[in-house]
Amino acid sequence: MITTDICIIGAGPVGLFAVFEAGLLKMRCHLIDALPQVGGQLSEIYPQKPIYDIPGFPDVKAQELVDNLMAQAAPFHPTFTLGERVEALDRQEDESLIVRTNEGTQVHCQVVVIAGGLGCFEPRKPEIEGLADFEGKGVGYMVRNPELLRDQRVVLAGGGDSALDWTIYLANIAKEVTLVHRSDSFRGAPDSAEKVFELAKNNKINLLLNASISSVSGNGRLKELTVVGKDKSRIQVPTDHFIALFGLTPKLGPIADWNLAIDKSAISVNTFDYSTNVERIYAIGDINTYPGKLKLILCGFHEAALMCQSAFKYVYPQQKLSFKYTTVNGVHAF
Amino acid sequence: MITTDICIIGAGPVGLFAVFEAGLLKMRCHLIDALPQVGGQLSEIYPQKPIYDIPGFPDVKAQELVDNLMAQAAPFHPTFTLGERVEALDRQEDESLIVRTNEGTQVHCQVVVIAGGLGCFEPRKPEIEGLADFEGKGVGYMVRNPELLRDQRVVLAGGGDSALDWTIYLANIAKEVTLVHRSDSFRGAPDSAEKVFELAKNNKINLLLNASISSVSGNGRLKELTVVGKDKSRIQVPTDHFIALFGLTPKLGPIADWNLAIDKSAISVNTFDYSTNVERIYAIGDINTYPGKLKLILCGFHEAALMCQSAFKYVYPQQKLSFKYTTVNGVHAF
Repeated sequence: MITTDICIIGAGPVGLFAVFEAGLLKMRCHLIDALPQVGGQLSEIYPQKPIYDIPGFPDVKAQELVDNLMAQAAPFHPTFTLGERVEALDRQEDESLIVRTNEGTQVHCQVVVIAGGLGCFEPRKPEIEGLADFEGKGVGYMVRNPELLRDQRVVLAGGGDSALDWTIYLANIAKEVTLVHRSDSFRGAPDSAEKVFELAKNNKINLLLNASISSVSGNGRLKELTVVGKDKSRIQVPTDHFIALFGLTPKLGPIADWNLAIDKSAISVNTFDYSTNVERIYAIGDINTYPGKLKLILCGFHEAALMCQSAFKYVYPQQKLSFKYTTVNGVHAF
Repeated sequence: MITTDICIIGAGPVGLFAVFEAGLLKMRCHLIDALPQVGGQLSEIYPQKPIYDIPGFPDVKAQELVDNLMAQAAPFHPTFTLGERVEALDRQEDESLIVRTNEGTQVHCQVVVIAGGLGCFEPRKPEIEGLADFEGKGVGYMVRNPELLRDQRVVLAGGGDSALDWTIYLANIAKEVTLVHRSDSFRGAPDSAEKVFELAKNNKINLLLNASISSVSGNGRLKELTVVGKDKSRIQVPTDHFIALFGLTPKLGPIADWNLAIDKSAISVNTFDYSTNVERIYAIGDINTYPGKLKLILCGFHEAALMCQSAFKYVYPQQKLSFKYTTVNGVHAF
């Protein structure tokens, strides 16, 4: 049994920064992540992509930010259980909690912080014949590393912002980009839609509207897909990659049984301390929602800081918390 | 007349980051600051001091952070009026605003963002004979640069956290530290108070309790002060510096006439968008307050991001705002 003050579910950037903020208040953290490494989406999906909106970094590579956050947390010696999924939560008689993973790891803690990012969600998969057979062999549900699509033929499907944005982005990188959408108008931002229409007009991309994909085929790897129009027309489109961008659907898994209030696929929290409706459970970062919520890393940092001030009362019930500036007090390692 | 979308009062770190966030939404900013340079407290009070709690920076010099934030804002070409104080705010018939400074500079804008930090506050000055004569000549109300106190004799007065924290900090740096406090218990954090008592016990500092300073004297520069005990005892303490740490008192100046809701010397905002009770006026950073508020730069960054999403409706009343990730869309300079 691992014993800690705060068990953080999710070792992405927000979970890592929570270690630092908790450490300033002398609270120890253990982090659990289903991925085999820390960094969450940053390390998993786009480690080499620059991020521009981290305050104080005109640009920073995603993996570099993760490395910095690890260095910042290091004085507080966080411990990790990686590559395991949280399965269960048991409340003890004294209100403390035990978190258990699919591998049987148990973490005893006073507070649970869910910093699961989008990791608690999975892509919505369309019903297309043969689709599952080619997953990871040309078929995907998100663009993990756009560089892998350089000079390739790519078909995208969807009508929201991510379909539009990736179409625009990949138009410069891929050899051939085709966007398939079942209607002739887009749900995404009007100026992105405009850009996509212009790219199509200039033959930079293929735009197939009022159409959907009925089947995919290939030989071990994806080779071709069939597009069916509303007018019943059928065309075969040869391609190297098909990326279905139909949004995410919650996959809270066992967390769904913890009686947390859920709103629009995210965990409802208040903005006083980012606590959930369940005592001793907080949710920070992309996994939470509240009025005005923006899914930005920098917002998760703020949420982590306020959460720690509140979590303190469970870890040190006898002590009065007094707020201190690191600039005056420094950082006192464990 | 300067014309802009958002007029930001205060060019500290939070005001500077607001330029970047506004720029992502195609809103231009003009910043006004009473100080002659950008950076607010960071540049004015502790440019060479390391900050440890900016996410992603295990440590960063205050001025370096300011330089980075300026570089991050640069693509959006903010304009500045420095060394002038905001004096008046006039609402136009179309609800847009004109901000006027003490030098007559006028800025026409759709939205005003008060990011005044502690700059809208001034130190509470005790009534001590001769005090004003030695301001800047040994007498001060905050520790701007602790290095200037190295190997000097320093007298501090006050009973709150900043008196305790600076006493502890300076005990290692100054030649001699004396803390004068009118009671024998402290309002600051118990463990800081304990540390101060221990420093006194070990003769690392002089602790004068139940006492206050009645007069200061010198010859052009501060040389000595008189400490009077509750028991009417009087002693002369020779010193190079006297720093009175009795907290801050609001100095909102003309802003006080803008009908903003004020709570505990700060401007009340909601956490949905950090708007004040007055339409088109927002407050972000250390100047604002709300349940759970922490006066941290990283919190001001979050507030700046959410504020911009809300301010957009005044700048582009006809447009629907669609949220975009810089990682996908990049940063489009003006």
